[in-house]
Amino acid sequence: MRLLVINPNTTASMTEKIGAAARRAAAPGTEIIAVNPAAGPAAIEGYHDEAMCVPGVLDLIHTTPDFDAVVIACFDDTGLDAARCATDRPVIGIGEAGYHFASMLSNKFSVVTTLARSVPALEHNLVRYGLAARCARVRASDVPVLELERPGSEGRGRVSAEVARAIAEDRAEAIVLGCAGMADFAAALSREHGLPVIDGVVCAVALAESAVRLGLRTTRLGGYAPPIRVRPVHDAGRLSG
Amino acid sequence: MRLLVINPNTTASMTEKIGAAARRAAAPGTEIIAVNPAAGPAAIEGYHDEAMCVPGVLDLIHTTPDFDAVVIACFDDTGLDAARCATDRPVIGIGEAGYHFASMLSNKFSVVTTLARSVPALEHNLVRYGLAARCARVRASDVPVLELERPGSEGRGRVSAEVARAIAEDRAEAIVLGCAGMADFAAALSREHGLPVIDGVVCAVALAESAVRLGLRTTRLGGYAPPIRVRPVHDAGRLSG
Amino acid sequence: MRLLVINPNTTASMTEKIGAAARRAAAPGTEIIAVNPAAGPAAIEGYHDEAMCVPGVLDLIHTTPDFDAVVIACFDDTGLDAARCATDRPVIGIGEAGYHFASMLSNKFSVVTTLARSVPALEHNLVRYGLAARCARVRASDVPVLELERPGSEGRGRVSAEVARAIAEDRAEAIVLGCAGMADFAAALSREHGLPVIDGVVCAVALAESAVRLGLRTTRLGGYAPPIRVRPVHDAGRLSG
Amino acid sequence: MRLLVINPNTTASMTEKIGAAARRAAAPGTEIIAVNPAAGPAAIEGYHDEAMCVPGVLDLIHTTPDFDAVVIACFDDTGLDAARCATDRPVIGIGEAGYHFASMLSNKFSVVTTLARSVPALEHNLVRYGLAARCARVRASDVPVLELERPGSEGRGRVSAEVARAIAEDRAEAIVLGCAGMADFAAALSREHGLPVIDGVVCAVALAESAVRLGLRTTRLGGYAPPIRVRPVHDAGRLSG
Amino acid sequence: MRLLVINPNTTASMTEKIGAAARRAAAPGTEIIAVNPAAGPAAIEGYHDEAMCVPGVLDLIHTTPDFDAVVIACFDDTGLDAARCATDRPVIGIGEAGYHFASMLSNKFSVVTTLARSVPALEHNLVRYGLAARCARVRASDVPVLELERPGSEGRGRVSAEVARAIAEDRAEAIVLGCAGMADFAAALSREHGLPVIDGVVCAVALAESAVRLGLRTTRLGGYAPPIRVRPVHDAGRLSG
Amino acid sequence: MRLLVINPNTTASMTEKIGAAARRAAAPGTEIIAVNPAAGPAAIEGYHDEAMCVPGVLDLIHTTPDFDAVVIACFDDTGLDAARCATDRPVIGIGEAGYHFASMLSNKFSVVTTLARSVPALEHNLVRYGLAARCARVRASDVPVLELERPGSEGRGRVSAEVARAIAEDRAEAIVLGCAGMADFAAALSREHGLPVIDGVVCAVALAESAVRLGLRTTRLGGYAPPIRVRPVHDAGRLSG
Repeated sequence: MRLLVINPNTTASMTEKIGAAARRAAAPGTEIIAVNPAAGPAAIEGYHDEAMCVPGVLDLIHTTPDFDAVVIACFDDTGLDAARCATDRPVIGIGEAGYHFASMLSNKFSVVTTLARSVPALEHNLVRYGLAARCARVRASDVPVLELERPGSEGRGRVSAEVARAIAEDRAEAIVLGCAGMADFAAALSREHGLPVIDGVVCAVALAESAVRLGLRTTRLGGYAPPIRVRPVHDAGRLSG
Repeated sequence: MRLLVINPNTTASMTEKIGAAARRAAAPGTEIIAVNPAAGPAAIEGYHDEAMCVPGVLDLIHTTPDFDAVVIACFDDTGLDAARCATDRPVIGIGEAGYHFASMLSNKFSVVTTLARSVPALEHNLVRYGLAARCARVRASDVPVLELERPGSEGRGRVSAEVARAIAEDRAEAIVLGCAGMADFAAALSREHGLPVIDGVVCAVALAESAVRLGLRTTRLGGYAPPIRVRPVHDAGRLSG
Repeated sequence: MRLLVINPNTTASMTEKIGAAARRAAAPGTEIIAVNPAAGPAAIEGYHDEAMCVPGVLDLIHTTPDFDAVVIACFDDTGLDAARCATDRPVIGIGEAGYHFASMLSNKFSVVTTLARSVPALEHNLVRYGLAARCARVRASDVPVLELERPGSEGRGRVSAEVARAIAEDRAEAIVLGCAGMADFAAALSREHGLPVIDGVVCAVALAESAVRLGLRTTRLGGYAPPIRVRPVHDAGRLSG
Repeated sequence: MRLLVINPNTTASMTEKIGAAARRAAAPGTEIIAVNPAAGPAAIEGYHDEAMCVPGVLDLIHTTPDFDAVVIACFDDTGLDAARCATDRPVIGIGEAGYHFASMLSNKFSVVTTLARSVPALEHNLVRYGLAARCARVRASDVPVLELERPGSEGRGRVSAEVARAIAEDRAEAIVLGCAGMADFAAALSREHGLPVIDGVVCAVALAESAVRLGLRTTRLGGYAPPIRVRPVHDAGRLSG
Repeated sequence: MRLLVINPNTTASMTEKIGAAARRAAAPGTEIIAVNPAAGPAAIEGYHDEAMCVPGVLDLIHTTPDFDAVVIACFDDTGLDAARCATDRPVIGIGEAGYHFASMLSNKFSVVTTLARSVPALEHNLVRYGLAARCARVRASDVPVLELERPGSEGRGRVSAEVARAIAEDRAEAIVLGCAGMADFAAALSREHGLPVIDGVVCAVALAESAVRLGLRTTRLGGYAPPIRVRPVHDAGRLSG
Repeated sequence: MRLLVINPNTTASMTEKIGAAARRAAAPGTEIIAVNPAAGPAAIEGYHDEAMCVPGVLDLIHTTPDFDAVVIACFDDTGLDAARCATDRPVIGIGEAGYHFASMLSNKFSVVTTLARSVPALEHNLVRYGLAARCARVRASDVPVLELERPGSEGRGRVSAEVARAIAEDRAEAIVLGCAGMADFAAALSREHGLPVIDGVVCAVALAESAVRLGLRTTRLGGYAPPIRVRPVHDAGRLSG
């Protein structure tokens, strides 16, 4: 099985880190193809960065020769709907993956993300997925995305402090880490705070693998019908309106 | 990995069918322990049957010697919250499993279940999970649960007719089959109607395996704290209020 | 008129206290039959306790020779839906009774209950009843249920402190006491804090009496249809699917 | 106990009918004071009629010498919020009364009212009360209010036909009759269609009597604080902001 | 173009201030007819005041000889629905006007209004308009309406302090001022706090002018159908049910 | 005043038609700069087309030398959030503009758009804006966008038939036309069907002009903070996180 794991930003060190996390989580026999667009923002911090990344994400889907499922490895689930039009293979965002797992492990979870400017886009996604009902609060740690890449950064400490506040103030029963760059913190934060701390990258890999193994495909009806003027390469499904 | 797959009703033929479906879906190395309570309703059709099954489900969790995760294999996710108090291992209901996958493969799905009397309990679950926002309609096929077990039954035909109505009237982009006894129909109905038709049993197996592989546990904080007067056998987690 | 008032837990002193409160609230001519199951948890603190009580509650409904309505006297409305399948007589939970009255006396109310572990089940009920829109917050006083039974307990003081916080922080215009064991506090807390403080037990008695006097019955259509494999004793209604 | 039952419109025959229904429903010892404003619309069919009735309703509350609770006997709950500012006695609308009882007897109910122009005001109330979640649909029978007063009217037949449609199309498990003028139909329609058919007038009387017996009062905090420039006659409560 | 700007209370100095603000905002050629009812409350602080003003508002609509649109210049949108039945010209409330503009300039806004007693009516409107989803919180500054009219009042300072709290605590991205009497503060508060601070009066004038220029009229179907027993003067539309 | 009216697709004839409609609606002295991206999809029919247009839309905002507000003239409000990060000038989408006006002219409206594949994106927007509560249904007419450009097309007839169904089946009180290409139909359909039929293009022009005249700007706080790595040309506001 080949999973196309797309880091929508152009920071190659993040792509590598994400790819490594995905490989550790993947089942034996799963090949992880970790890629990022050639051009675009170096990090996604808000709606503008997000929008500028999407064509590059779609291009990777249209041009990668062969894959069984796609993981979109930015926590705002960059271009998720458009990507589902581009292929009938399963497409899983790391944000939604984290939310879905958190919903099955707790009554209510909080999200700890990077900057305040990213919060509305995540809240927007949660409303849309329906899972806003399960999320106590989306919290900003005020740690920029690329700071998480810097050795010696205080980022982990600030994220941990925000986890503590989520437990005390939101009565959160689980935490979803709101950035692919926080993937490495999950296990230690979970032990430290005594509750599930969920990284979306590994959740998305598991969901994508599961969907492939179960033979599930993205629907071709309605909103995810393939684009009329672009014939997707990776689509064996029938066309519907 | 050992998955405890509990059919909450006492119909052994359903337990066998569910166990077989679970084994087909499971990864190599996963052992499926398919069980049902010794006493209780022969099928779950509505709130009363559901309530009568839960102590038996909890007893199986408390007494089964060793397992890594639990699947509750009735589509109303019988006793799901109570089961999550009984163990810190992941507990996945087949109803929620179907809804979560359908949410990642379509904009909007419909559910096709057995009798009208079961519809409100499913609607209740959807509201609670937050995924009511993603469900166009819960439809009854008027096929009783045990009729699905009868050779030569018209059940499959009636379910298929209801799938067709869901596409035409609800603009459903995917279908979730609303009974463990319909698991065998999924692939053929998907081909016939040209959209994802999702069986919760296999989805729940995949989610449970994934959670185990990722080291995720049910939270011990808040509503899923272990019961005060029952010391759960399968719980290594710390106790919290 | 005979009201079957079921304390779902097995603590006889609570059953007596609940029965006494019900008798004080009942109209002349109403007989209160206060009972509890023979076996089960001594208190209901969270989902697991709740689930273990329900078969005992249903058994009391099926075997009590004659009654006109049922009151379920635990604030999580233990087994309410299943009980409505078991009889066509009105069945009223003390939680919903408190919420409905609070909705007619204030724009927004808060709930003060016992332990944090019980909060999600109450929030779940509120969402389902639709009345979450009217509830500012469900607050835990951290007083265990059985502590409320202990002479000299500090429970009342802690509940009062939480009422004060609900007024200040939630802008609550009324309070619903979230445990049958708090029934005795309502009048004094109302005088002390200058707002309606509502005990669900007496509200449920009044609603049950009202429904009986008005000739109202639980529907037999849809989700409350009688169970197929159990012929309820107390059901004169027609069967519907 | 004295209940002030206010028919907000000026049609005396409706006031009499409402008063008679209230008296039949009331407990022994309850005095029903059925009144209507001296001036205003003859019937309430939509927002404009409703608004024109409210000052008359408030004037009746301010000038009636002595009462223990108020029932507002128009199904749109005319001026309910303002009336709750005008007195600390319980104030119950017949619309809300019907919805609250229907919510305790069924999973989902439909409303059958008079004209289409009245539907949005009822939907608005349901959203606000939170009980829109429990209402399948508000249906217009196209029978004007005053037609219900006319001997030999076809109104009852049209209401019955709409009840049948609510069962078939909305899967309604109970019906709330959406006009005080339909009170007389409830029992027969319930027998005819085999489900609870609920008249708000008698429900409101029962709720008002219950609140009085339980010593419950309308809150004086927040939105129902007494008006600053009008000293209410019937208000012993403290003033709060 | 003639805009009928109705101050629903009887304080002439507020009517003048509102009229002046409206004239400054209006396009060249727009005539502002600023009026208030002859009798009624001097200020609107809660549901009771609001209800007492509505017949006067409707009377002004029915008797003003000629106008192209109506602005209702109290922040609780006094009698908005009834006014829309009274004329097919556009009718815009200053509350809704502020909310709609804030929704197009920010992800989430807070409201700063006068007294706590007015908050539930505003929350009620927000729920109904659908825009509660966009409002972080309705905050009371504890400044009475008429205090805003007093020279040397501390009102502006208290409103400013509440704006600061909305930014810090609610993460509000914009502020809507919740009283026509605060119109003069908007520009300075916006500069002071560095975010959009929106006055509903000028927004409503702009929306009313826009609707007139675009030839848009209030619907005559459904809930805004003209009253049956009052022939509106200003209504050229067809009658519908 | 200069309004930048962006047609996000590359069909120049649509840009001209939109520009002409905008000029007819604009006040004297407003200059309409109607543009479209140089490259990208010829029409926007679903999520994939939408995503591919956004960078071109943002580029037009960043490079157009001088403007006072932006109108995004595709009914799915293509890239609206990202555009609001790109400038502190008001940015109005034609979809939201239509929904906001419809909410002030009716209790409930339906949308009539082009193809079924576009419906979920519009529903998604409505949920996010909060205005899903006001929308009865989003209906597809099955007329492709570019068919609306073809002389002699049957498009107008099919749209009219769908308007009739919205009135009969959805009880819609107003209609919002769900494509910029339908702008020319609005007035005639309104006369034909006797209810407001709203074109978003002219509504957005009016809202943009209004915001400019009132001195309102897009917030720079939170989700619409300017992008960190792109210094917007048209932004005088302070930077915030």
